[in-house]
Amino acid sequence: MDATSLERFGRRLRVAMIGGGLGSYIGETHRIALRCDGLWELVAGAFSRDYSVCQATGRRLLLDPERVYRDHRALVEGESRRADRVDAVIVATRPATHAEIIVAVLDAGFHVISEKPLTSTLEESVAVAAALARSGKRLMLTHCYSGYPMIRMAREMVERGDLGRITAVDTEFASGAYAGGTPEGAWRVGSAEAGDAGMLVDLGTHALQLATYVTGARVSEVSARLDRLAPEHEVYDNAFLDLGFEGGAVGRCWSTYQAAGAVHGLRIAVYGDRGSIAWDHERAEVLWWRPVDGPETLLTKAGPMATAGALAASRFTAGHPDGYGLAFANLYRDFAEALMEEAIGEDPAPFLARLPGVEDGIHTLEVIDGALRSHAAGHAPVPLPAGPGSRHSVGA
Amino acid sequence: MDATSLERFGRRLRVAMIGGGLGSYIGETHRIALRCDGLWELVAGAFSRDYSVCQATGRRLLLDPERVYRDHRALVEGESRRADRVDAVIVATRPATHAEIIVAVLDAGFHVISEKPLTSTLEESVAVAAALARSGKRLMLTHCYSGYPMIRMAREMVERGDLGRITAVDTEFASGAYAGGTPEGAWRVGSAEAGDAGMLVDLGTHALQLATYVTGARVSEVSARLDRLAPEHEVYDNAFLDLGFEGGAVGRCWSTYQAAGAVHGLRIAVYGDRGSIAWDHERAEVLWWRPVDGPETLLTKAGPMATAGALAASRFTAGHPDGYGLAFANLYRDFAEALMEEAIGEDPAPFLARLPGVEDGIHTLEVIDGALRSHAAGHAPVPLPAGPGSRHSVGA
Amino acid sequence: MDATSLERFGRRLRVAMIGGGLGSYIGETHRIALRCDGLWELVAGAFSRDYSVCQATGRRLLLDPERVYRDHRALVEGESRRADRVDAVIVATRPATHAEIIVAVLDAGFHVISEKPLTSTLEESVAVAAALARSGKRLMLTHCYSGYPMIRMAREMVERGDLGRITAVDTEFASGAYAGGTPEGAWRVGSAEAGDAGMLVDLGTHALQLATYVTGARVSEVSARLDRLAPEHEVYDNAFLDLGFEGGAVGRCWSTYQAAGAVHGLRIAVYGDRGSIAWDHERAEVLWWRPVDGPETLLTKAGPMATAGALAASRFTAGHPDGYGLAFANLYRDFAEALMEEAIGEDPAPFLARLPGVEDGIHTLEVIDGALRSHAAGHAPVPLPAGPGSRHSVGA
Amino acid sequence: MDATSLERFGRRLRVAMIGGGLGSYIGETHRIALRCDGLWELVAGAFSRDYSVCQATGRRLLLDPERVYRDHRALVEGESRRADRVDAVIVATRPATHAEIIVAVLDAGFHVISEKPLTSTLEESVAVAAALARSGKRLMLTHCYSGYPMIRMAREMVERGDLGRITAVDTEFASGAYAGGTPEGAWRVGSAEAGDAGMLVDLGTHALQLATYVTGARVSEVSARLDRLAPEHEVYDNAFLDLGFEGGAVGRCWSTYQAAGAVHGLRIAVYGDRGSIAWDHERAEVLWWRPVDGPETLLTKAGPMATAGALAASRFTAGHPDGYGLAFANLYRDFAEALMEEAIGEDPAPFLARLPGVEDGIHTLEVIDGALRSHAAGHAPVPLPAGPGSRHSVGA
Repeated sequence: MDATSLERFGRRLRVAMIGGGLGSYIGETHRIALRCDGLWELVAGAFSRDYSVCQATGRRLLLDPERVYRDHRALVEGESRRADRVDAVIVATRPATHAEIIVAVLDAGFHVISEKPLTSTLEESVAVAAALARSGKRLMLTHCYSGYPMIRMAREMVERGDLGRITAVDTEFASGAYAGGTPEGAWRVGSAEAGDAGMLVDLGTHALQLATYVTGARVSEVSARLDRLAPEHEVYDNAFLDLGFEGGAVGRCWSTYQAAGAVHGLRIAVYGDRGSIAWDHERAEVLWWRPVDGPETLLTKAGPMATAGALAASRFTAGHPDGYGLAFANLYRDFAEALMEEAIGEDPAPFLARLPGVEDGIHTLEVIDGALRSHAAGHAPVPLPAGPGSRHSVGA
Repeated sequence: MDATSLERFGRRLRVAMIGGGLGSYIGETHRIALRCDGLWELVAGAFSRDYSVCQATGRRLLLDPERVYRDHRALVEGESRRADRVDAVIVATRPATHAEIIVAVLDAGFHVISEKPLTSTLEESVAVAAALARSGKRLMLTHCYSGYPMIRMAREMVERGDLGRITAVDTEFASGAYAGGTPEGAWRVGSAEAGDAGMLVDLGTHALQLATYVTGARVSEVSARLDRLAPEHEVYDNAFLDLGFEGGAVGRCWSTYQAAGAVHGLRIAVYGDRGSIAWDHERAEVLWWRPVDGPETLLTKAGPMATAGALAASRFTAGHPDGYGLAFANLYRDFAEALMEEAIGEDPAPFLARLPGVEDGIHTLEVIDGALRSHAAGHAPVPLPAGPGSRHSVGA
Repeated sequence: MDATSLERFGRRLRVAMIGGGLGSYIGETHRIALRCDGLWELVAGAFSRDYSVCQATGRRLLLDPERVYRDHRALVEGESRRADRVDAVIVATRPATHAEIIVAVLDAGFHVISEKPLTSTLEESVAVAAALARSGKRLMLTHCYSGYPMIRMAREMVERGDLGRITAVDTEFASGAYAGGTPEGAWRVGSAEAGDAGMLVDLGTHALQLATYVTGARVSEVSARLDRLAPEHEVYDNAFLDLGFEGGAVGRCWSTYQAAGAVHGLRIAVYGDRGSIAWDHERAEVLWWRPVDGPETLLTKAGPMATAGALAASRFTAGHPDGYGLAFANLYRDFAEALMEEAIGEDPAPFLARLPGVEDGIHTLEVIDGALRSHAAGHAPVPLPAGPGSRHSVGA
Repeated sequence: MDATSLERFGRRLRVAMIGGGLGSYIGETHRIALRCDGLWELVAGAFSRDYSVCQATGRRLLLDPERVYRDHRALVEGESRRADRVDAVIVATRPATHAEIIVAVLDAGFHVISEKPLTSTLEESVAVAAALARSGKRLMLTHCYSGYPMIRMAREMVERGDLGRITAVDTEFASGAYAGGTPEGAWRVGSAEAGDAGMLVDLGTHALQLATYVTGARVSEVSARLDRLAPEHEVYDNAFLDLGFEGGAVGRCWSTYQAAGAVHGLRIAVYGDRGSIAWDHERAEVLWWRPVDGPETLLTKAGPMATAGALAASRFTAGHPDGYGLAFANLYRDFAEALMEEAIGEDPAPFLARLPGVEDGIHTLEVIDGALRSHAAGHAPVPLPAGPGSRHSVGA
């Protein structure tokens, strides 16, 4: 077995986070993601404009208080001075602040991991690109859907020609988030902050990025119809885009907050002259493949059509969706909490109640033992001993 | 925000692993799961009977070589002497070795996390229960499917009475693993090691545990028909069980290696006099709910029927399957590998090629900018500038 | 084009119906089915034990009153005397009456179309077989699911060896009909009439017939667990059968009235050592095919795997489910009723309101005309004329 | 029971068909549809420009040769002279001929049933409307998808306000018919005959008609992008339409021949501020309902949300898809052919081989009898007698 990047590098990468404090959903998502494979270590942060939230986040993460900074400037400065300085900085603040922060981080010589959108405006993103070029550093934009095994498989299927010449791309992020009424303070649809491009920047970017990621083709022409479907919205909440792609394919991109009843709503289908593929984030583990000369097929990472990239992006064997890892992690989390609570004198019972334990082990073996005896007795019913139910099974 | 268990406990739990060395799928799964939430730290191990594999695993994980042990006895002894001894030990060896190892670990005063089945035989599991009782320690059995949000929701729906009186339970682990022929060295179906109960212990335990976990009722009666469907198998590869449950429900449990074409095949349906629920591991994010007085419904962690346990078991908001976290983690893994490879003088391009970067950020904003201009011009097509494709977008 | 059976025979077959009067769901189903292809003509009947219902049925069908008979004896006698006597008789009465009626019909020299079950008891069915043998006539048992294109395809796939050696058959008719409580007068679960075998005769026969129809193999061994899941039921409402088939396959058959939430619940899956197929009546147009060496596939009557029998059983081209014919028939029915009502001086408006008409034709062409003009004008929006909505579009 | 329209009218409606001769798929579809309910009688026709085909069609249908006409003019003239003249005429010829034929038929005083599109051009359709108005007759346009129970339910759900204010309509007829290459003689894409509007008239009309049928709102504005995706096509084979509806909703309509892998591809989704519905012709029996305040739900004609129109459009009880009627009809057709063939001295065996018969009846009762005995014997396996398989079961 060859040595991995980690073994040869000799240590985990150190990373800091800007934004993403307690209560931030995206911050917590980044933390889960960076931990999974044991390649990163979160050691510093400026997690919030509110310093008390920032400090509480540091405590929650057991960070060294010295590396919990008031703002991104302090972080850049503080980390620059340390021998054990971070390798990279995660930018998880609001889009309007991205350009300034990213440039500062790059200029100080750190790699960047940026939440999408890269910036709020096209001009800012060009400025970021210039800073990146002069820095010699790397920037990853967390268009997270690009990480799904089936999206990587879609991309590789296009690349190896399974679909033939690409003719059409249909993508949408048709969210129902504000269909029943827009919650107070939904900054994404408030005119002042969101601007006319707000919904497109929030949702449309994902659908557009998927389209170019999967096909490898840029958009060369766009026409658009933008509407306000909810009377109370000050900015566009619905956009129909018709697209032309380099290479001659056509496409559509629908993004909206008003697709009532859709919990998420991100989808992509790509058509070629040999077949088409379709993916829906609400069933992310599968890819529909519809060849012109065969039946409709449900592809997974198993099977002869699986690509190297899909397999590399999957941590579990065929038949095990990626959620398997987090189902497993739930057991570890509950058990950790049970043990920690008990260690500090609290009652672990609520955590233990959810966990399989020795009684589950015994009872399933009792049933199997009974099954073998029943079979030997010509299928006769075998009664099993009464005992504690599985609800109370993780005990001392 | 209240302090979490982790904050109050003040450090991560330390854990060792027995078995699960490089090349072990289940070992890697445990490691991913324990890292996700930052509550555990893997610091020691006896990962393989083959000491060179054991050492290679320690190196891969950047462990202190002193804590990489030859076998479980050395591990128990070595850790017992340390001030920074582990809190718990993961047992991920073959089932036949579980009983001896678990008892040794408990007797030395460590908590246990055991892979399923608890032991190979009913007698051994009773011995483990006795050791657990005298140890005062805790044991978690990683029946991992119990960790799925939708399984927890199913259990809570039964508990709060949504289904009414439970009448029937239909569960199966109908795997197609050996339907096209059994691979060389498949120890699970070799007579000597697997025994007559082998397939039931491997697959049936999961289905039976789910049945008792979700319903909270023990099996009180079993009758069984066992068969060898593949001529080359020395042991049963198909089992039909009919079940009676405490409380009066009836049930079935099918387990097999011969369900051709099934990649995984774990399913459960529970029927009550008010409605039924059904779950299929191949679409683990949803739970079908079929009330007697309403239409068939697709439940997720979103929506008014969601239970507290399902929400607690979900790390992401409604609409985001659990695989979302690992899609995100793929970006972090690829980027880490790119940065590490580049730092040691290797070419990071293959890793970067898969990642969204600054060009994705710019291009999606270009399209949006074009869309706004098209709309303003009465839907007229707006051409976009040519540029590098998204395939080459994470650059210096 | 060769002459069809009908052309060479020179006339439609004449048929009479016993049972199936107004209000009988199964009688109406038989009438729709026999009309579809223009091969049968219903010319006589003894539709009900209640003669007024029998006569009303005759009037509804515009039958010659002379051929509307009081009972099956009168029908057999009356038709036997006629030159234009019927060719066949449909038996759609309760199962307990089948044996006597079928024997009488056969003895009088008519072919028989019998609703399932053939008879109530095994003894009676043997007597029917004897009568059939001595009559030289034909008997069709309307196990209607045998007529589905996908069931015929399943059977032919087994026959041509797609699945390899058959190893297991899983079938069920898990109905939720009485899960929320049994309606008054549900004769199928009343002890006196239904008997212990009642539910199995009602539901189980369909699942068992499908199993033998698709596999071509008889059941050679059965073991069973029968239960009463609803406290108010006097007879078994749940049956778990384990089966052995001639040729060595094993199987299961679940039949029940208590599968809460299931509207119908008929399913079959057949496993072989090369792959498996699965069919669910609630999605009757497709057949799942899961080969051991390829991905899961959704078969329809389209595509390279389609069998001759499936195509012969389909009246519409690929992509058009069989319901297409009845959707079409709805237009014809509504229009017929509109024209008839208007002809007798009634208001046709309620029937016309549902039907597409000239306004639909005009309006869709208006939109298309606008689309061509918009495209020619660089995607510019083209306003369309106001006009009557599609709700009022079938006018004089 | 009130007398039906048919009883009060006293006879079936008589109808003639123009076009739709042997080999015409749409002609056969109309014939199946008009027979189903016994309300129409096809008594005359001018089925083809090729008189030999026309005559062959008449023979196939056992028509009076006097009523098999050379062309629509002869038909109109001939029928006009008869006392038993037809009530209505079906127009199933190519669209380019519709206008002339329909006007002639209306002017002669017959009702019209016209295949869609109404005419080839907007101008012609206006002329047809004028002829209809002056005739005092009725015209039905067979936009057949309007007849599906779930489409009628969708329309009634919109009407009764389940969706709230309609905000968006997404419809498509994305066919893959010519994605793998266009067959010789596909007149729909040949420039001379099809014209620029050809594909839109063929496919787009269906999607647009569904949109207005379900919502009850007309299109008030359209912008369009039309493309030729297959290099060999002389006319547009792809159309993206953006729509504005009266009442303020927006919409999209995609129609194409190039959606590779799609067998059919007709879909509609309607969004309102209370929820959305979605229907796909490839699963026509169900309607997805996604309310803003509840989980995603699978509606059928069963259940509390079913509408009167959906129930009226369904001939079978809940759980029985419409294909059920044609599965049943397959048994009747096969049996008719068997009996006819046998009557003229041919071998009925191939037809009988597909049909359930007395052996199926006996065998299923044997299994049930065995099941009762097994249960009584404590689940013991009960062997069943050997016998003829179900493959050979409809015997003399």
